[in-house]
Amino acid sequence: MDDAGLIEIAREVPAKRLKTPSTVSPQLQRSISGLAAAAAAGGGLPQGWAPQSVAEWKTVIAQMDAQALAMAPALAALYPHTCELGQIAGVTVREITPATLDPAKSGRRLVHFHGGGYALNGGEASTGEAVLGAHHSGMKVISVDYRMPPDHPFPAAVDDAVAVWRALTAERSASAMGVFGTSAGGGLTLALALKLKDLGETLPGALATGTPWTDLTGASDSYQVNAAVDGVFSNFDGFAAGMAALYAGEAGVTHPLVSPIFGDFAGFPPTIFTTGTRDILLSDTVRAYRAMRAAGVTAQLEVHEAMSHAEYIYAFDSPESAVAFGDIARFFDEHLSN
Amino acid sequence: MDDAGLIEIAREVPAKRLKTPSTVSPQLQRSISGLAAAAAAGGGLPQGWAPQSVAEWKTVIAQMDAQALAMAPALAALYPHTCELGQIAGVTVREITPATLDPAKSGRRLVHFHGGGYALNGGEASTGEAVLGAHHSGMKVISVDYRMPPDHPFPAAVDDAVAVWRALTAERSASAMGVFGTSAGGGLTLALALKLKDLGETLPGALATGTPWTDLTGASDSYQVNAAVDGVFSNFDGFAAGMAALYAGEAGVTHPLVSPIFGDFAGFPPTIFTTGTRDILLSDTVRAYRAMRAAGVTAQLEVHEAMSHAEYIYAFDSPESAVAFGDIARFFDEHLSN
Repeated sequence: MDDAGLIEIAREVPAKRLKTPSTVSPQLQRSISGLAAAAAAGGGLPQGWAPQSVAEWKTVIAQMDAQALAMAPALAALYPHTCELGQIAGVTVREITPATLDPAKSGRRLVHFHGGGYALNGGEASTGEAVLGAHHSGMKVISVDYRMPPDHPFPAAVDDAVAVWRALTAERSASAMGVFGTSAGGGLTLALALKLKDLGETLPGALATGTPWTDLTGASDSYQVNAAVDGVFSNFDGFAAGMAALYAGEAGVTHPLVSPIFGDFAGFPPTIFTTGTRDILLSDTVRAYRAMRAAGVTAQLEVHEAMSHAEYIYAFDSPESAVAFGDIARFFDEHLSN
Repeated sequence: MDDAGLIEIAREVPAKRLKTPSTVSPQLQRSISGLAAAAAAGGGLPQGWAPQSVAEWKTVIAQMDAQALAMAPALAALYPHTCELGQIAGVTVREITPATLDPAKSGRRLVHFHGGGYALNGGEASTGEAVLGAHHSGMKVISVDYRMPPDHPFPAAVDDAVAVWRALTAERSASAMGVFGTSAGGGLTLALALKLKDLGETLPGALATGTPWTDLTGASDSYQVNAAVDGVFSNFDGFAAGMAALYAGEAGVTHPLVSPIFGDFAGFPPTIFTTGTRDILLSDTVRAYRAMRAAGVTAQLEVHEAMSHAEYIYAFDSPESAVAFGDIARFFDEHLSN
């Protein structure tokens, strides 16, 4: 049998009922059970469905952003901070200052790109993860509210990221700045570094990419293995594939600045990856980590028991979330200059 | 709702057909497809079944060991080596010498414990992984053919491991020796270090634990998530749970030397973990890695796309296998003394 034939052999996996495991903290158990209960109640978008018009996209995006924003008060209560709205190089940014700044790191900055499939979590909904990063690192975080489709497909987000980065490096050493983000924000973190390499610009001192969306073609194995297993991002087909196409536009989903797995990571700064065993982007994460290691980059992989996609953000009261952001903060401590 | 109630909420995952992914090498694709084809043909033990008598155990063990041994000629053709049978402290060992020894590492040794659920892969079937470790490290490997049930349940395996280790440290510095193993062999690697700590003996210079069986109670989340997904070790219930009970005997599966996840990893030597995204012991691996990090141990986690349990041993012609053992060899290079 030839190789092409072998690829078509499928493995049959029977239906299963996944109990919430006893092997995680009570807080993460509550998150996992809450997601399972929501799925059982038929919550969320219909499976396989994607908006069919710009108007439909905008309606759904507004609804989902409002849901994301609903967690802001509880987050702010646990992690007090100030948020200052501004512009850098014409791009909207929010500077998050945690209640406790570490004076030893006052010369450093973190730059944050929010997740949401390059369509969701714009505006006020963009800073949840930035608040957690600021709290756990004791550093100021500049969260970039990059332009998104349907009005602004690729390369608007990358252009905004580069513009902000260039402005920041005019006043501070690149090696004293780290860049981080989750999901699409993790992908954009990698795309920024790939683009800066192309431009011959100085790269950040370190990167932290959480469950990064690195392969928008949907080829990664965990898209099938963890379909319906992941409680946050449960299926690629439908809405997520729609966001991929909406974002990529004419460039297509195989463009290396859209799907960084097709890029060349040689020369990248030290990078930490975070994911979970239920994460539908477990493979997107692992493949990018392996590609970096193969390119000789200093890379660190952190995987959390029973965690779904980006759940370390949503279960922000869990010890697992503190461990995830603590690892990221320590990684920046080790690799950023003053 | 109280926490106990939340644990009972289940997540429904529909039946699925997993295609062999395009995101791995052709060699690993062939392995994945071969395992899927064997499952489709109804190969392997009946699901949920376990032997009910010592005689049944011995029959099945002999059959499975013969299957494992069948890969030896192909392995030897790719990785030429010599195998010298001997005894150390009354324990049967096989010293594997690869065709090419690295003279810079001549003062070092690796100690190997085979996998197989503490029941399988005894005797001539025990050295497959040792051959790969020897080849990729350029070091001599002492593979320990520890006693196993049904005749010799716990603590015979740990006692044998300790006896061999003590004899080896009488003639060579512990810091110049690394210990490695996969599955039960990874668990025994951790159990040995836990026992040496208890005894106040010097610990190995470094450990490499591949998809280690750290929780024989079956609580890890990937036992359910990757059930029937993993092509090598497809289900915990039945045969594997039977091996766990057979091995643990009167000590029970929660004994920390049976299930090292219940042990205290403080003071452990640097440890590298290897697993795959389809691995049914992904969670056993990740939980032990996290526990080590929490205890302040230098630990490194390597995860491979679409790999099932221990598949880096069985797909020994794949580039992924070479990367896995290359990472382990480099880890020993970095952490062992001369």
